[in-house]
Amino acid sequence: MPLPNLPAADGPGAASRSVIPVRVRFAETDLMGIVHHSSYLLYFEEARVEYLARRGAVYLEWVARGMHFPVIDARCRYRTAARFYDLLEIETWIGEASRATVRFDYLARRGDDVVAEGWTLLACIDDARRPRRIPPEVLDQMLGPERQGVAPSIRPTTSSA
Amino acid sequence: MPLPNLPAADGPGAASRSVIPVRVRFAETDLMGIVHHSSYLLYFEEARVEYLARRGAVYLEWVARGMHFPVIDARCRYRTAARFYDLLEIETWIGEASRATVRFDYLARRGDDVVAEGWTLLACIDDARRPRRIPPEVLDQMLGPERQGVAPSIRPTTSSA
Amino acid sequence: MPLPNLPAADGPGAASRSVIPVRVRFAETDLMGIVHHSSYLLYFEEARVEYLARRGAVYLEWVARGMHFPVIDARCRYRTAARFYDLLEIETWIGEASRATVRFDYLARRGDDVVAEGWTLLACIDDARRPRRIPPEVLDQMLGPERQGVAPSIRPTTSSA
Amino acid sequence: MPLPNLPAADGPGAASRSVIPVRVRFAETDLMGIVHHSSYLLYFEEARVEYLARRGAVYLEWVARGMHFPVIDARCRYRTAARFYDLLEIETWIGEASRATVRFDYLARRGDDVVAEGWTLLACIDDARRPRRIPPEVLDQMLGPERQGVAPSIRPTTSSA
Repeated sequence: MPLPNLPAADGPGAASRSVIPVRVRFAETDLMGIVHHSSYLLYFEEARVEYLARRGAVYLEWVARGMHFPVIDARCRYRTAARFYDLLEIETWIGEASRATVRFDYLARRGDDVVAEGWTLLACIDDARRPRRIPPEVLDQMLGPERQGVAPSIRPTTSSA
Repeated sequence: MPLPNLPAADGPGAASRSVIPVRVRFAETDLMGIVHHSSYLLYFEEARVEYLARRGAVYLEWVARGMHFPVIDARCRYRTAARFYDLLEIETWIGEASRATVRFDYLARRGDDVVAEGWTLLACIDDARRPRRIPPEVLDQMLGPERQGVAPSIRPTTSSA
Repeated sequence: MPLPNLPAADGPGAASRSVIPVRVRFAETDLMGIVHHSSYLLYFEEARVEYLARRGAVYLEWVARGMHFPVIDARCRYRTAARFYDLLEIETWIGEASRATVRFDYLARRGDDVVAEGWTLLACIDDARRPRRIPPEVLDQMLGPERQGVAPSIRPTTSSA
Repeated sequence: MPLPNLPAADGPGAASRSVIPVRVRFAETDLMGIVHHSSYLLYFEEARVEYLARRGAVYLEWVARGMHFPVIDARCRYRTAARFYDLLEIETWIGEASRATVRFDYLARRGDDVVAEGWTLLACIDDARRPRRIPPEVLDQMLGPERQGVAPSIRPTTSSA
């Protein structure tokens, strides 16, 4: 599977995207006054987890089935600085999938600005850390649309509503 | 100002509490399979920032006025383990206030369980890091109720609603 | 066991202290230009791990014996700001020990300045997360002196020496 | 400047490498029992800072000259899991340099195993966040060999030596 430099505009999951809000924490900034570059991997992970939750996929159920998805490769390009208390929206989709890997692509936006873009490649492994095939119904679920009411979630609203 | 071992049930801001949801991130767990104890200081900080935002207080405006609030003391007692993807609710209020310090108290709950409790003592300092008096209108705002529509915020809802 | 506000000058392990160097990372600073207050819990943990390693105690062996030491309470008082690339020395000792808990006390110094001081209370639990007695030989090891050549470790030296 | 998928075996700084030890912290692991993938960006940063310190380059002096080096792109490929208390060695060199950017390449080893490999691309900017040329003497210093006794540093030794 060739790895792109940047998120793919198309790909198997391009039609089924989710947008997950993330509020920048104070602790995620550094002495340059901007979000530390490592924080984006945390945002991407939070977005990926929420993307899956909205499709009814529960990471801990996968663990109970002996299925784990460690990150085996990651890329992030920083386009402009994000700052404390910025409300970022992480657009998330599956840019590529193979028998035993799946690549999540991300665009981090603040309003109309793209703040960062990247991807993380995940491998499906068993309890002994050997590669295993992603079960077809799991992949279908990953590539499918958001579902209604599958899990409590965090969404942005106006304050004190 | 005497420092309590635990959050105060009363105190100047006890009548004006906020409850801020925080979803546990994967990265915030450790090899014991539970939330790492240092993560709670991040949750308390996120709750404090959101508590203030709901009252119209904007940290960056304070910075522009030469007013900073570093944490000068902190305590956290862990009552039970929290885990990945738990939705915690951080009940937050001001347990004590003096001329130049303010203490935020916190209860972290998961449903009916208290997961952790603690406080952070903040000092008001100027740009030269000297102690300064908290302006009365700032303290009033801190101690007051949540306001309507003061800032975008993140609230828990059901997914895909 | 009464919990002190600050590290104890005496205590069962006061005579057997270790000093562990920690270099402040860029990512551990925040937009105030100083070390974020949560970072000190990471420094205390690194110091505690190294304190134990210097006495031949190996955390993973304890895990294999079904013995875990989660932090159940923590306190940190910040005396002055630390900054990027500061070389801190974390003086570490056991300030209190009971049948099933042990409290590590810490002083974080930069040269002659005390930057922060605090303690963490650890509980001994079994694989089912029930309290268990700390085995006497484990406590003896914890309270004893540093040993020679027990494990590779990281020590400060001058660069490129 | 084309970006490689992996660290370059050659490049302008390939002859002047440094190896920086990093001990895995407990907090850097996750519930899979391995080092969280975001931690490697912290290790790479620590290695980069130490690489520069060994050549007499002091980040804060650069800041005083109005010269900053934010990360604008990053890649990390994970080859095998690292675990708590592993002693990693981060081999660090400059894989590419242009007028206003410099790319640091990294190999993270545990003994003979390559645990991870990656790079970070840094841009030179001024106080107004505009791109600026890297001064030739700064680039020379970056590309040059380690110097003797330029700064205190942290090096691995055997314990209690």
